[in-house]
Amino acid sequence: AAVLPAGGSGERLGGATPKQFCAVQGRPLVSYTVRAMERISWIADIIVVVSPENIEIMKSIIERYGHKRVTIVKGGITRHRSIFNGLKVFAENEFSNHLLQKPEVVIIHDAVRPFVEEDILSKVVMAAKEHGAAGAIRPLVSTVIASAADGCLDHSLERARYRASEMPQAFLFDIIYEAYRQCTDYDLDYGTECLHLALKYCKTNAKLVEGTADLWKVTYKRDLYAAESIIKDNLSQQVCVITDVKEAVAQVGFLLHECLKSQIKVEAISISLSKNDSHLQNIFSGQCYNFVCVKGKKYAIQETQQLVDMLEKSNIPLLYPVLLILVHLDISENISFSIEMEELTRIKKFAREVKKKNILVYGLLIQYK
Amino acid sequence: AAVLPAGGSGERLGGATPKQFCAVQGRPLVSYTVRAMERISWIADIIVVVSPENIEIMKSIIERYGHKRVTIVKGGITRHRSIFNGLKVFAENEFSNHLLQKPEVVIIHDAVRPFVEEDILSKVVMAAKEHGAAGAIRPLVSTVIASAADGCLDHSLERARYRASEMPQAFLFDIIYEAYRQCTDYDLDYGTECLHLALKYCKTNAKLVEGTADLWKVTYKRDLYAAESIIKDNLSQQVCVITDVKEAVAQVGFLLHECLKSQIKVEAISISLSKNDSHLQNIFSGQCYNFVCVKGKKYAIQETQQLVDMLEKSNIPLLYPVLLILVHLDISENISFSIEMEELTRIKKFAREVKKKNILVYGLLIQYK
Repeated sequence: AAVLPAGGSGERLGGATPKQFCAVQGRPLVSYTVRAMERISWIADIIVVVSPENIEIMKSIIERYGHKRVTIVKGGITRHRSIFNGLKVFAENEFSNHLLQKPEVVIIHDAVRPFVEEDILSKVVMAAKEHGAAGAIRPLVSTVIASAADGCLDHSLERARYRASEMPQAFLFDIIYEAYRQCTDYDLDYGTECLHLALKYCKTNAKLVEGTADLWKVTYKRDLYAAESIIKDNLSQQVCVITDVKEAVAQVGFLLHECLKSQIKVEAISISLSKNDSHLQNIFSGQCYNFVCVKGKKYAIQETQQLVDMLEKSNIPLLYPVLLILVHLDISENISFSIEMEELTRIKKFAREVKKKNILVYGLLIQYK
Repeated sequence: AAVLPAGGSGERLGGATPKQFCAVQGRPLVSYTVRAMERISWIADIIVVVSPENIEIMKSIIERYGHKRVTIVKGGITRHRSIFNGLKVFAENEFSNHLLQKPEVVIIHDAVRPFVEEDILSKVVMAAKEHGAAGAIRPLVSTVIASAADGCLDHSLERARYRASEMPQAFLFDIIYEAYRQCTDYDLDYGTECLHLALKYCKTNAKLVEGTADLWKVTYKRDLYAAESIIKDNLSQQVCVITDVKEAVAQVGFLLHECLKSQIKVEAISISLSKNDSHLQNIFSGQCYNFVCVKGKKYAIQETQQLVDMLEKSNIPLLYPVLLILVHLDISENISFSIEMEELTRIKKFAREVKKKNILVYGLLIQYK
């Protein structure tokens, strides 16, 4: 199981909305983090701990983005109290409608670290099984100093001997739960470090696991900018070129593939859209969010509708905007400009409809001789 | 004076180009930092220390972006050795063609912290005058921990008692120069903290000054994304609406001002462009990078050329792209569509020319009755 404390107020961000609920590409940050956990099949339950006033918002986020295996828990007034509440759903009846099954290992991760990968999660979990506790660390970016009472430098720490403690962390459930049960009110109110509690109250020296740079925590407004750019970058890594089986059109698809492949990962397929193609279905459930669909005469809206239906069924447009560029390749000569325009107008109307489903359709008309 | 070490290799960024030379909106990051120093009149000299292979690149950056008061110095193999080289230009003859005048106080700042404001620079300088040394600090974002030899947690530091040491720092020149002269090879090779050297070798306890969040250091690729977004944000804070004095047109300018003012800082002026307007000149030397110019019939390219010339003379397009939207308001009824198009084609050609000067011209044609 994983516990995600998401009760912070985000003072450092300087806005009214706590950072975990800020929109990144239109979707709240916490939804990205939940998704990062959810796609990992061996995480049985995801506990999101939010402050009382945000429970309804969190419920609507889970419904809107179709998140599964999530339990919402009411947070406390500090980070440690919120995490403790999150752990209680596995041990005490009062905190959820039904007691969740107690896990052997529990992951604790921040709601504002959306880019966590399976690799590091699996590493901290394995280390926790062996050592009782484990946490991701990173090298320090700045030198750490201690200040004296007069606001002057007391001493500086040797940077190489220290590390920044990051998330995810993982614990044998019994150890971290026991640590929280035993710790003092002072710990609950002023502490920040779960590894410290495991050490102090259960004599468990956590194993430290070097993490990658993408574990960083969204703290300031600049971090939201960075998160948005990284997500956009990830979305534009791959494009799928779909052409129908007609020769002239398939060749354009081939040429487009040749042009693009030095800059981006391209998959090109020729299919008859009228059949329900399993290859296409596979792509739609993968990591591709950009599609170029090249068609000759006649461009039938029904076929496009079919594509859109398949995309919708795949659930990807629920999480990310999907780009679909319809290229209408006109190789005949006797069609007038005004008729072509009519067709584009139809696509425009269609695009307006499917935009509501987070699918962005663009039409491109190419006269080709 | 200010010394900017810019000799790092940027390993953490994961690219071939050191981060200080990475392009942000087309301009190398170091140029933004130099500019942040240069606009402060009381900083007499700016010393940029770069590794030997980047001296020519740095020279071309200074020339291209018109930086003044900059001296380039060859760096050493570590950060401390580079800073020491930078200080030597004020004390030893061999390091520059002419010995620069020794300053009372020297600022040390990173080339990869472009958003430094005059306020914090002035605070650390004043504190250095009083205490001999001073440096900006920030609260820690993550808990800092010490690891034991076996890779397990040894202890965690109480977050509230420690601070991250950031830049800028400032020193009485004689103190920091003496500290560098006395310190060991080990310090020069493995140390990272100038405040530490001042304390160890000159018994100077630096005054610590709380800095703002924008002092952060560009370290990872995500930081470049963030820097780019912050710069774009700053550029789109203000727009200037310019209309000619003709009544109908001036009124459109007024309405545009009313529409925009809730979202953005707007300055609206009505002038006759043929005269050399000092008000306009003032705006051009300010912080405005976006101009909407509304004109009635006839739109003369010469007037636009005059605007572009004034912009060029102001030197702003040297540092940032300037946006100029030419709105052609057509209130007559007897001009045919094709003639209008001709006019737009002329503007298009003109725009292509001035784009080379970093001025982005767009033409908008509005039929108005």
